[in-house]
Amino acid sequence: MNGAESLIRAALAAGIDVCFANPGTTEMPLVAALDAVPGMRAVLGLFEGVCSGAADGYARMRGTPAMTLLHLGPGLANGLANLHNARRAHAPLVNVVGDHATWHRAVDAPLTSDIVSLATPMSDWVRTSRSAATVAGDMADAIAAALSPPGGVATLIVPADCQWDPVGDTATPVRSPAARGRSDGSTIERVARLLRDTVDVTMLLGGHGLDRAGLTAAARIAAASGCKLFSETFPARIERGAGIAAPVRLPYFPEQALQALTGARTLLLAGATAPVAFFGYPGMPSSLVPEGCHIEVLAGPEADVTAALEAVADALGAAPAPREAPRPLPARPSGKLDPASLGAALAALQPEGAIVVDESATSGGPYLAMAPAAPPHSCLALTGGAIGQGLPTATGAAIACPDRRVVALQADGSAMYTLQALWTQARESLNVTTLICANRLYRILQIEAKRAGVGTPGPQARGLTVLSPPPIGWVDLARGLGVPGVRVETADDLVSQLERALATPGPNLIEVVL
Amino acid sequence: MNGAESLIRAALAAGIDVCFANPGTTEMPLVAALDAVPGMRAVLGLFEGVCSGAADGYARMRGTPAMTLLHLGPGLANGLANLHNARRAHAPLVNVVGDHATWHRAVDAPLTSDIVSLATPMSDWVRTSRSAATVAGDMADAIAAALSPPGGVATLIVPADCQWDPVGDTATPVRSPAARGRSDGSTIERVARLLRDTVDVTMLLGGHGLDRAGLTAAARIAAASGCKLFSETFPARIERGAGIAAPVRLPYFPEQALQALTGARTLLLAGATAPVAFFGYPGMPSSLVPEGCHIEVLAGPEADVTAALEAVADALGAAPAPREAPRPLPARPSGKLDPASLGAALAALQPEGAIVVDESATSGGPYLAMAPAAPPHSCLALTGGAIGQGLPTATGAAIACPDRRVVALQADGSAMYTLQALWTQARESLNVTTLICANRLYRILQIEAKRAGVGTPGPQARGLTVLSPPPIGWVDLARGLGVPGVRVETADDLVSQLERALATPGPNLIEVVL
Repeated sequence: MNGAESLIRAALAAGIDVCFANPGTTEMPLVAALDAVPGMRAVLGLFEGVCSGAADGYARMRGTPAMTLLHLGPGLANGLANLHNARRAHAPLVNVVGDHATWHRAVDAPLTSDIVSLATPMSDWVRTSRSAATVAGDMADAIAAALSPPGGVATLIVPADCQWDPVGDTATPVRSPAARGRSDGSTIERVARLLRDTVDVTMLLGGHGLDRAGLTAAARIAAASGCKLFSETFPARIERGAGIAAPVRLPYFPEQALQALTGARTLLLAGATAPVAFFGYPGMPSSLVPEGCHIEVLAGPEADVTAALEAVADALGAAPAPREAPRPLPARPSGKLDPASLGAALAALQPEGAIVVDESATSGGPYLAMAPAAPPHSCLALTGGAIGQGLPTATGAAIACPDRRVVALQADGSAMYTLQALWTQARESLNVTTLICANRLYRILQIEAKRAGVGTPGPQARGLTVLSPPPIGWVDLARGLGVPGVRVETADDLVSQLERALATPGPNLIEVVL
Repeated sequence: MNGAESLIRAALAAGIDVCFANPGTTEMPLVAALDAVPGMRAVLGLFEGVCSGAADGYARMRGTPAMTLLHLGPGLANGLANLHNARRAHAPLVNVVGDHATWHRAVDAPLTSDIVSLATPMSDWVRTSRSAATVAGDMADAIAAALSPPGGVATLIVPADCQWDPVGDTATPVRSPAARGRSDGSTIERVARLLRDTVDVTMLLGGHGLDRAGLTAAARIAAASGCKLFSETFPARIERGAGIAAPVRLPYFPEQALQALTGARTLLLAGATAPVAFFGYPGMPSSLVPEGCHIEVLAGPEADVTAALEAVADALGAAPAPREAPRPLPARPSGKLDPASLGAALAALQPEGAIVVDESATSGGPYLAMAPAAPPHSCLALTGGAIGQGLPTATGAAIACPDRRVVALQADGSAMYTLQALWTQARESLNVTTLICANRLYRILQIEAKRAGVGTPGPQARGLTVLSPPPIGWVDLARGLGVPGVRVETADDLVSQLERALATPGPNLIEVVL
């Protein structure tokens, strides 16, 4: 056995059996180990951001990590944007990065770089293996770190000689991650009293508070106490649809978020952190907590939010699982194609158990408003704001849940950053339907330019926010990557093509011209 | 005037008039400044690696920097791989990265990250502006740092409030970069004596030693002294073709490089550093300097190599500009399409003054051997080993030299990392012909796996090195990005299509099925 084989064994022993890989020369012993040690499924991405985003999507759906395999500093660098999103999602993920042999680093070969400096900003845990003998233990530590609440990105750098050097047949180490903390009885008591005795309490749900059990408990609390329910703006994962409590999504722009929270005298945090503005604007505060509003923490992202919510509901004597009022499914739209008809079509047609990966940016608002009426489904959002997350995350979610249809609701500008993911969907025959919201603009930047006081954008500002000419031909791009696609220009066409696409195994793409 | 406008003015005052941009919300004041302050050409890339690679190609051809404009940590991260190549090329480049307003960083908004930690490994100079008042001076310092020998990557991080805050109408600062060092008289004397008195001297040329004047002086020295001439394996830029001295390219694999240098008793460095293996292999040394070989430095990459070479040639009393023996142009190939016929077709057809961007990996060897017979041209190589350099660098070279035809000789696997560059070529109507070497393999990894002792690759190793199924349809991908393309499967078709493509204005692509 060599160091590389000991690493793969440690991964398998901890239950990691999917590796999203884009390896190079310094990872060859690990590639060989994937054959020498049976049990790991290697999935090739043609760009590292596909691998890191797929590992994020996989983790959000499974709750357990996949590993990546990346090539030195530049390979890691290409994966960092989606690692940033994964870290903000608290998605457990083990990032394995090769490096030059330890004795080769000193000569500063062309591919040498400071990998630790690159990894640290987007990782919760970083280590470089020192010898083949430590590799298995390092990997076990990395996995435990990734799984420790609230979940995070662990990056293990493994020099090539630590991969190829022999280690003998030692036992495979397994480490237990820390457990999720439980909110203590006094916190439960205090929050229950607060809810009983106070009006104008607003609860902000995040993290696992947005899973089905968390939402049910939150709905019981709201029914018993009258508190308002909000969700984070960009949840890592939220369960939605008919019969599931639907908290109000905290708006994106700070003035709208502050408006939404107006009147809250207590903001109760359940799996969420105190809300802050996505960007700073002149004259606007960074904090979205209204002045004079008191913050009460029921459970942080690292705690067992669901248990805390259930304990509070019980303490309030709340009735079990209030029945959600039925919401009418939108009619299948006809006529003009716009964000509203796009949203109606998807909400009306998406199958039960769909996984909707939402990187729709400015085109998705109407869909998000209608989605609570759709059949029960999971929705994964762009947690960290690093665009190019949607197609890779959809890819990983489809690997994690082969029996569920994945729908990527995807802005066109953002899709361009990691379009290579479509190729992996084709190679692996994944059940992913991609809806490209083709407005051919960086629309959000046009809005932001207006907010920044640019009245009429000049030719340079216009050139940097308009994606045509040339128009991006998404059907051609998809075909080039092995995915069948169609372009639709009316709502009627969208309905018929979407219905067909959702019922067709394997990946497909619809360019929705908005 | 605000900080953003003062930055653009400082750039223009130093001669920077091209900005390769992929901005976001935190860069909006800089985008507005591109209209408010006339003179800067903004070129949109749909992925940040396109911007950084284009700035690299621009700098290699112009010798002066372009600027980039990137969006916070994740945007910078997407540009790092090509910044790594630019740094290894000593290409002067000013990287401008926006950040949250200074007062917004503390709240750890979703897009917050440690930008300095990300930037440092791939930059020669990093600074974060502290207020709008310092921005213009910071930019002037960044430009001077980028231009100081040997040339490098300067990264300036500009928080949003430092962009939008007013600065008044202050004078625009300009800083002088350091001058290239001159080798002193005693070094020239010592090297001349060495060349006169010693046999078995091998000169390794790099950096500006590979420009036309440097190569001419080196050829004079070789003719007068009998020394051998080698070039770096991956030059940032080398002039090649009929009438130009053609040093031997130092081979890529270490055993071949050591073999090539066997018998050298002195290795004379002219613009190059002492050669090291690209990767470390078990049982192979990191250094490629043969045992017992003495190293003599005529001029480092930061020095005026050409002046040093000319001084040595004069000290030797070498005759001016030896006539290069004419090399027969390869015949236009016919029949089977393979790396040899591809190389012959390109060498036979490329026009005088072409710029060949070489990211051909395993498919380009025959071309590189034949290129000295082609009409005079410039060749830009993959300096840092971070693949995905070719298409962006070709884009930037075409912006720098609109009157020259750019040819991207491009491996298919590597092209996938930054294919978005084709869109920028289409939008800007750039004269770039891309030849995709479509072997549908990560062929280099198959070679490396064999070198690593993997006899017959197992299914996992095979799956990670074979790019089909599905085959990547490059003609479809190009069409989707606005670039006309054709697929060729015989040498005859390649010849006729390449001849046509090279004579057609604007970008085009040929998928060469190998």
